[in-house]
Amino acid sequence: MPPAVVLLSGGLDSATVLALAREQGFSCYALSVDYGQRHVAELDAARRVALTGGAQEHRVMRVDLAGIGGSALTDPAIAVPETPTAGIPVTYVPARNTIMLSLALAWAEVLGCRDIFIGVNVLDSSGYPDCRPEFIDAFSALAALATRAGVEGSPCRVHTPLIAMTKAQIVLEGTRLKVHYGQTVSCYQADASGRACGRCAACRLRRAGFEAAGLPDPTRYQGL
Amino acid sequence: MPPAVVLLSGGLDSATVLALAREQGFSCYALSVDYGQRHVAELDAARRVALTGGAQEHRVMRVDLAGIGGSALTDPAIAVPETPTAGIPVTYVPARNTIMLSLALAWAEVLGCRDIFIGVNVLDSSGYPDCRPEFIDAFSALAALATRAGVEGSPCRVHTPLIAMTKAQIVLEGTRLKVHYGQTVSCYQADASGRACGRCAACRLRRAGFEAAGLPDPTRYQGL
Repeated sequence: MPPAVVLLSGGLDSATVLALAREQGFSCYALSVDYGQRHVAELDAARRVALTGGAQEHRVMRVDLAGIGGSALTDPAIAVPETPTAGIPVTYVPARNTIMLSLALAWAEVLGCRDIFIGVNVLDSSGYPDCRPEFIDAFSALAALATRAGVEGSPCRVHTPLIAMTKAQIVLEGTRLKVHYGQTVSCYQADASGRACGRCAACRLRRAGFEAAGLPDPTRYQGL
Repeated sequence: MPPAVVLLSGGLDSATVLALAREQGFSCYALSVDYGQRHVAELDAARRVALTGGAQEHRVMRVDLAGIGGSALTDPAIAVPETPTAGIPVTYVPARNTIMLSLALAWAEVLGCRDIFIGVNVLDSSGYPDCRPEFIDAFSALAALATRAGVEGSPCRVHTPLIAMTKAQIVLEGTRLKVHYGQTVSCYQADASGRACGRCAACRLRRAGFEAAGLPDPTRYQGL
């Protein structure tokens, strides 16, 4: 089984990606990034998902993005919005996916693997610039030039199996692959035990996905 | 004075870049990355250079690349070569410049600045893939797509003032700008106080640069 690095946030999308990468026959090295996000519940969820999702190894790398702030997810002084906003929302974390893919690229090169998976998608997403297909294409072009493997003719491929899927399609795929969505945390402001607020953009997209798919929502909400 | 993020390793090249960015009228936010390199002398040097070079602020971000290894600079079990080798040397650190530029991009976006400086050069370099102009061009293309600033029409520019200069030209430029090269550490295996081995590729390139420029070499060597 060829090795692949799978970026695993602890949320619904990346848990589905891990299951899809395993189905495609990859031995999965799950990478989570502790960047100073609002709550540790997300990383706790990533650990559970890596274990039950059959990852070969799970690594948490730390990068202090909270030190520079600039996002509702890294600066406690910026509130997470609970109503939709126009444009790129304040939950956008500057250069987050560029940094995460760079770390995945480094680990992939050391592991000698040619495949990286990331759970970005554009349809039911928050409108972040670094979730778009053109961003992924640009990163792939960069990866081919940035590394020894690229120079030697076998650059990393960046797989984005969810990129054109709706949230409903994602949860249907994950349910087929027996993903334990109750273990995942998507909420931007989950409490310490991982219970969701039910009001932020991530919660709304997630809940609507289960509804549209006609599936029970296993999310644990605060106050319930 | 417009702000710029300047990647500062503590070596000769990036110290020169800081001086050039200052000369061009930028208010410089120096960024060093503690990635688990062999010796802390490099980061100590970066702190001195930031101070004497007039940086507005100096930030050290930590990323544990030593945990994944794969390079003589991050894995103590891989020896630093003291004779030239063909191809990309083992001192290449997987995806290092991609990661460093990504972190610079994040900080630049939070600071609201549109300029990043990095001291890569191809002539008197160690042959790393992520020091080439085509890599920098690909990163610039990525940055324009990755960030809010890029989407809103004012992407970051990546400045590489040394890219086509020889080491001799670099030290002549820096000497003109009164860079304190005695404070910088280029050696791959400097001792704790920053004294250079005089034998690794970085030492050889540096020493040859001062010789070709006809300038005294202020480097402190081990055993002297």
